[in-house]
Amino acid sequence: MKSILVISGPNLNLLGLREPEIYGHTTLQTIHDELVRLGSELGVHVETFQSNHEGAIIDAIHAARGRHQVIVINPGAYSHYSIAIRDAITSVDIPTVEVHLSNVHKREEFRHHSVIAPVAAGTIVGFGADSFYLGLRAAARLATSQDKG
Amino acid sequence: MKSILVISGPNLNLLGLREPEIYGHTTLQTIHDELVRLGSELGVHVETFQSNHEGAIIDAIHAARGRHQVIVINPGAYSHYSIAIRDAITSVDIPTVEVHLSNVHKREEFRHHSVIAPVAAGTIVGFGADSFYLGLRAAARLATSQDKG
Amino acid sequence: MKSILVISGPNLNLLGLREPEIYGHTTLQTIHDELVRLGSELGVHVETFQSNHEGAIIDAIHAARGRHQVIVINPGAYSHYSIAIRDAITSVDIPTVEVHLSNVHKREEFRHHSVIAPVAAGTIVGFGADSFYLGLRAAARLATSQDKG
Amino acid sequence: MKSILVISGPNLNLLGLREPEIYGHTTLQTIHDELVRLGSELGVHVETFQSNHEGAIIDAIHAARGRHQVIVINPGAYSHYSIAIRDAITSVDIPTVEVHLSNVHKREEFRHHSVIAPVAAGTIVGFGADSFYLGLRAAARLATSQDKG
Amino acid sequence: MKSILVISGPNLNLLGLREPEIYGHTTLQTIHDELVRLGSELGVHVETFQSNHEGAIIDAIHAARGRHQVIVINPGAYSHYSIAIRDAITSVDIPTVEVHLSNVHKREEFRHHSVIAPVAAGTIVGFGADSFYLGLRAAARLATSQDKG
Amino acid sequence: MKSILVISGPNLNLLGLREPEIYGHTTLQTIHDELVRLGSELGVHVETFQSNHEGAIIDAIHAARGRHQVIVINPGAYSHYSIAIRDAITSVDIPTVEVHLSNVHKREEFRHHSVIAPVAAGTIVGFGADSFYLGLRAAARLATSQDKG
Amino acid sequence: MKSILVISGPNLNLLGLREPEIYGHTTLQTIHDELVRLGSELGVHVETFQSNHEGAIIDAIHAARGRHQVIVINPGAYSHYSIAIRDAITSVDIPTVEVHLSNVHKREEFRHHSVIAPVAAGTIVGFGADSFYLGLRAAARLATSQDKG
Amino acid sequence: MKSILVISGPNLNLLGLREPEIYGHTTLQTIHDELVRLGSELGVHVETFQSNHEGAIIDAIHAARGRHQVIVINPGAYSHYSIAIRDAITSVDIPTVEVHLSNVHKREEFRHHSVIAPVAAGTIVGFGADSFYLGLRAAARLATSQDKG
Amino acid sequence: MKSILVISGPNLNLLGLREPEIYGHTTLQTIHDELVRLGSELGVHVETFQSNHEGAIIDAIHAARGRHQVIVINPGAYSHYSIAIRDAITSVDIPTVEVHLSNVHKREEFRHHSVIAPVAAGTIVGFGADSFYLGLRAAARLATSQDKG
Amino acid sequence: MKSILVISGPNLNLLGLREPEIYGHTTLQTIHDELVRLGSELGVHVETFQSNHEGAIIDAIHAARGRHQVIVINPGAYSHYSIAIRDAITSVDIPTVEVHLSNVHKREEFRHHSVIAPVAAGTIVGFGADSFYLGLRAAARLATSQDKG
Amino acid sequence: MKSILVISGPNLNLLGLREPEIYGHTTLQTIHDELVRLGSELGVHVETFQSNHEGAIIDAIHAARGRHQVIVINPGAYSHYSIAIRDAITSVDIPTVEVHLSNVHKREEFRHHSVIAPVAAGTIVGFGADSFYLGLRAAARLATSQDKG
Amino acid sequence: MKSILVISGPNLNLLGLREPEIYGHTTLQTIHDELVRLGSELGVHVETFQSNHEGAIIDAIHAARGRHQVIVINPGAYSHYSIAIRDAITSVDIPTVEVHLSNVHKREEFRHHSVIAPVAAGTIVGFGADSFYLGLRAAARLATSQDKG
Repeated sequence: MKSILVISGPNLNLLGLREPEIYGHTTLQTIHDELVRLGSELGVHVETFQSNHEGAIIDAIHAARGRHQVIVINPGAYSHYSIAIRDAITSVDIPTVEVHLSNVHKREEFRHHSVIAPVAAGTIVGFGADSFYLGLRAAARLATSQDKG
Repeated sequence: MKSILVISGPNLNLLGLREPEIYGHTTLQTIHDELVRLGSELGVHVETFQSNHEGAIIDAIHAARGRHQVIVINPGAYSHYSIAIRDAITSVDIPTVEVHLSNVHKREEFRHHSVIAPVAAGTIVGFGADSFYLGLRAAARLATSQDKG
Repeated sequence: MKSILVISGPNLNLLGLREPEIYGHTTLQTIHDELVRLGSELGVHVETFQSNHEGAIIDAIHAARGRHQVIVINPGAYSHYSIAIRDAITSVDIPTVEVHLSNVHKREEFRHHSVIAPVAAGTIVGFGADSFYLGLRAAARLATSQDKG
Repeated sequence: MKSILVISGPNLNLLGLREPEIYGHTTLQTIHDELVRLGSELGVHVETFQSNHEGAIIDAIHAARGRHQVIVINPGAYSHYSIAIRDAITSVDIPTVEVHLSNVHKREEFRHHSVIAPVAAGTIVGFGADSFYLGLRAAARLATSQDKG
Repeated sequence: MKSILVISGPNLNLLGLREPEIYGHTTLQTIHDELVRLGSELGVHVETFQSNHEGAIIDAIHAARGRHQVIVINPGAYSHYSIAIRDAITSVDIPTVEVHLSNVHKREEFRHHSVIAPVAAGTIVGFGADSFYLGLRAAARLATSQDKG
Repeated sequence: MKSILVISGPNLNLLGLREPEIYGHTTLQTIHDELVRLGSELGVHVETFQSNHEGAIIDAIHAARGRHQVIVINPGAYSHYSIAIRDAITSVDIPTVEVHLSNVHKREEFRHHSVIAPVAAGTIVGFGADSFYLGLRAAARLATSQDKG
Repeated sequence: MKSILVISGPNLNLLGLREPEIYGHTTLQTIHDELVRLGSELGVHVETFQSNHEGAIIDAIHAARGRHQVIVINPGAYSHYSIAIRDAITSVDIPTVEVHLSNVHKREEFRHHSVIAPVAAGTIVGFGADSFYLGLRAAARLATSQDKG
Repeated sequence: MKSILVISGPNLNLLGLREPEIYGHTTLQTIHDELVRLGSELGVHVETFQSNHEGAIIDAIHAARGRHQVIVINPGAYSHYSIAIRDAITSVDIPTVEVHLSNVHKREEFRHHSVIAPVAAGTIVGFGADSFYLGLRAAARLATSQDKG
Repeated sequence: MKSILVISGPNLNLLGLREPEIYGHTTLQTIHDELVRLGSELGVHVETFQSNHEGAIIDAIHAARGRHQVIVINPGAYSHYSIAIRDAITSVDIPTVEVHLSNVHKREEFRHHSVIAPVAAGTIVGFGADSFYLGLRAAARLATSQDKG
Repeated sequence: MKSILVISGPNLNLLGLREPEIYGHTTLQTIHDELVRLGSELGVHVETFQSNHEGAIIDAIHAARGRHQVIVINPGAYSHYSIAIRDAITSVDIPTVEVHLSNVHKREEFRHHSVIAPVAAGTIVGFGADSFYLGLRAAARLATSQDKG
Repeated sequence: MKSILVISGPNLNLLGLREPEIYGHTTLQTIHDELVRLGSELGVHVETFQSNHEGAIIDAIHAARGRHQVIVINPGAYSHYSIAIRDAITSVDIPTVEVHLSNVHKREEFRHHSVIAPVAAGTIVGFGADSFYLGLRAAARLATSQDKG
Repeated sequence: MKSILVISGPNLNLLGLREPEIYGHTTLQTIHDELVRLGSELGVHVETFQSNHEGAIIDAIHAARGRHQVIVINPGAYSHYSIAIRDAITSVDIPTVEVHLSNVHKREEFRHHSVIAPVAAGTIVGFGADSFYLGLRAAARLATSQDKG
């Protein structure tokens, strides 16, 4: 059975509490539960991880080597400047799906650019918690098949 | 039953023939067939449209008023400069999902910016034909429910 | 009797329906009627044309040669990138008045720049439907007199 | 009866003498006379003011509070950098029409940008002395009616 | 016998009439006749096409697949922004020669950049109608030989 | 008989040896021989010159006054920064054709801009050694006729 | 007893009347009274000055030489472009505290940059009328002591 | 009694030791002691925290929810790029005062821009240790009163 | 006898007192005396004027019409942004020599650009008080002779 | 005996495993061993440290005070944005040699700029593991001698 | 007796022949003769040098060490990019006066910036051959006196 | 025995005389002698060359073909703009080590960018004469071994 690691970056632990007009009312725990459930529906194992620490996210990506076949990551604010996380993704050579809850292209100029996107397999932006679920579907496809349409 | 219009922009009629190392081997017709099939699985009506003409795409968006509840659009090259298509989307006030087959963030600098993205509900980039199918899932969710997680 | 061609670009056919908080509730047909009426008050013949197609607007400008003495154009979104329409205006060498309904300088950065403005005789921006009527007055003056104050 | 203040900025006192190939041969006094005449035709009171001093223009705008319902301003060179005049306009909260005699978009790059335009109701550019007269018509409409087309 | 398609973009139908100080007095029909004649001298078949419509040019490029071995294109104003035409050229994978009548580098800043040039085999700029004839010579060489000096 | 000077800039002496995947295998001597031959076919005298020294190229352009009617120049890397060579060309007032072997628009960003192009009659880019031969044809036309199509 | 000059720039005379959602309801006279009162609490003499004229502010700064030990200045809009006021401050060599009522970093891009800040001792931004009072406290410290923590 | 959290970012633990010509000789411990003392004078509880770790600062901001009414933060170098800390501040919705010891506008270009400033209530820059004390006064005002002058 | 007006802008009244390490110790009065003396040596009448007010400088330039044949101006800080003074110079059509005491190219970036320079006959920068005297020599040449070497 | 601290930043723990076509096959442990050996050959003590955590690297630099005379640092991705590490280096005032394994100037644009370089003594880039060894030689020279050639 | 070296850069040997509408009709030899004559009037020895070769100009500057007390240089096109000549000037530590015949600020954008200006004592621009003579006067003052006004 | 060519660019002949606070007191001859000595220690032949002429440096690089296995180059000021030298290096396909004596990243903005660096094997910056010696060590490694750590 394929295994997928879902990583959430800084401030996502406050999801549901933080700026609900932008990010909605669902908590991260609820999303994690639903991801595990959807994973088993799609036939993949799902593990979740959250940290506010850039270094801890890098460590988690390194630790995924040999254990997970695809990563789904919501890098939060680190999307916009953490070249270190970008390099971690290319270092471990695991296909990675980048997701964002809000439509970053509707917000401040500096949120329009992601340093992660060019090393991700693909990106899903703007569908609230659904971004995670669509990201998991994309990841499951990447994990179980290399055939791209 | 909700109805979703799927629009494909310039050169997508050559899909499967054009630069397969970037866009894959699936033809647009195959994708259209699968979209209709997936739509009926998701309980939504799906119509498809392709044109190389910016004006024709604008006309199609206008015609969607009162007939479709959500638009899925792959604007192709027009993503990067057609403010006219952007304005068409805001004019008709229909939620719109933007999709791209290739990971535009891995390609030329000018492909990193979409004038459509800020007026779309969300964007799905880089999963080949799966971008269309994930986009249809997102659209179906938008069509059948306003609750965002 | 002098003749003036009034051209409206993409999405203006939805006027009165589209984003009324920006563009107001008057329809394009109402404006066209008033332009014809005001033209006869000012002693000029007025013809109107609208298209969402950049190429069709270029064709209309070409066809104005020998038939109209001044053009009033609201290029809509094409204002910001259609060098082809700009070149059409300089090609036919007919004095052209550029009008915009909304104050483009209050909106997104990319709407602050018009590629048409440098080849227009002048520009009128921000007065709603009055922009068209003021533009027709300016055009009538250009058509009937070369004396500038 | 509504009252409209027409303000002219630096160097416009030399109008008719200064660079006639750009600004024409009409003097500012002639324009002021015609504005008063046109005002009475339109049923509005017109007062005129000119100064080369940024501070004096700000003082005049402040003094307009409670005395004039609309301002027509040709800020001249101050258009391009006087944020202080811009703030004066927003401070007094009187609708303001910006006019320019020459087509600034045909001239030096730095004349293409106006710091006043985003706080004006609208802008009229490039019709010589007619810019003032069209501006007065626009102002009279703003003074006597809030209905915008 | 090899076949070469010569495409002319927007406003080139007015050649000989439009801004002769920039583009000269020869009409497009005269150029087309000379291209056919020169083609037969060089031993290649020549077809010509002109349109003001971006979409129609894309359609023509698509239709060239299997019928023409090289394209000569004067994209006119579309050179500067039509990524859609650029993508059409790469889609059909036919060697393409870009030509311009005027020396675009002597004109406005925005004419110095062509989005077509990076996907063309080569570019010929500034020789009036001769740009077309030199372009046909270059195309004939590309059609009949892959040896490059 | 008209005379044409063909100048090659830095590193072109290594042609055929240097980066053949970009510049091909033909040596500069072979090109020079063919240019002389083609010149006699076209009825013009051809002289050739190569130097790696910016100052020597300027001296050669100065010396062309009164001896050559047109210059064909491949300025190599100096294209991108030698304002001194640009000024030499305008100083001697001899029509000049700029040629490049490789398609500079496909290469590094800094090669997309030529300081020579705005003072050249025209530019030919990307056809390998053929760029020189097409350039000579263009030069011969300029030398023998002022009629431009 | 040390003396501190408090200067307010353009449009601050309208304080309490102008855009209260940005600047609050307190008038400049009320602030001036409180500054004098707080000054006597802190053991410093306070004088106040307001002008809409850039030149008058420069004159006031010059006149402060030998009369005041510290300047507190709210340069208003002149913060963003008056290099002349900046030079006046460096000319008289009197320590200067820059204050702003609103948080300029939350407003238009052009308000994020102050040409005064690099020649000020320090800057206090965003606390409404408290910005003046905190600025006076900072100034009193600078006036009575050179010891910085 | 209101509670205020004072956070100091990277390298501030070396205060008094590090670059004294820029930051002065007072140690962070001395400042913390004075802040607690001044807090009791102002009738507010003060807690202090320092870390070199971006993630630890984010965690501390999160932990302030429900415990502190205002935050005073000297983000040090993180001011210039930590969008993650910026998002932490907006996530917890606690008014925040940004302080800097040195006048950042006199130093390197990259120190002129703070990503924190637009989400802070206000900013105090350049008064050495006094920046902290003035910041605490501002915070105490924000904590005990919503009335802004 | 020709007459030359020498204008000095903001803060030059403090010359000799202000930043002597940049501007030297000579006072403006001393320079004015020497300019009058040198003028009589060169056979031209010299008048001098200084103001800190942009508007007053514009008024002085206007008043020079018909009274002075050349202007020498040290616009001080207004060099860098006063388009109004620039327009005043072009309005009166009097040849103008721009002078600066310090070498502005050695100082802050924003001092490298003068909006006056493109409308001046020429510029003299960096020779202290000698800049004024060299400027007067240049002006005397312009006043007494139109022959340029 | 002088002591040198060698710090490696994020993802360097994967050296030999990560992108060997860019970084080679040598592991970090092998490099550390060789550095210690080379140190003893050069007569200096060598300690090594690696972390993916920006804060931990800052802590390590702080801890070097009084224990090491020179630092050799490969900041990895933090080179491009960690102003906090830059400030840590200037805070401790220990000469620092920056090294990079790959030639960053051949890679993505954002890798061309290092915020560390301006505060380093010098930089060595592009020699694979040899960059570390050359860096240690440079560091040993800095530690044992202040004489620079 | 003090000695002054006057250096002229590329294309200045064509002076009087080249673009007389920009540079006038005086030849460089005439200017050189007048410079020697004016030098003897001012009591300084004058030597002149011209080259089109950047390296030769650098060699000449080096050779000036110990032989000339001031350099007057018209670097021509090298002004805009020759950092090598700039470094030569700082290397020999001889005060240098930069002169330009034409007003470079009225010409192409790239001529507005000089890499020489920041290392020159001062700059004289726009007075035709008089620029050289004024430059010699400035140089003579620098050579014979260090007193600056 | 491998042979290494060491090239020094403009103004380096003045080393030890020129700006010793930046470049130190060692002369180029001393460095050349030490390079030869160190070369024999490392078992490689060393030749040295210096010129102020860009063309001469290009000629020297061309002449290295077949005679030297590695080049060490200090391009001096040419580093920042000589694309011609860059192309010479890629033309001869000899591994090249770029060295700089001073830390260019601490100096003027324009010295931060090298057009040579992307075609060099690696770069060594900031260690005074040691930069040359470390560069020779790096070159010797490149010459005798292709194994990179």
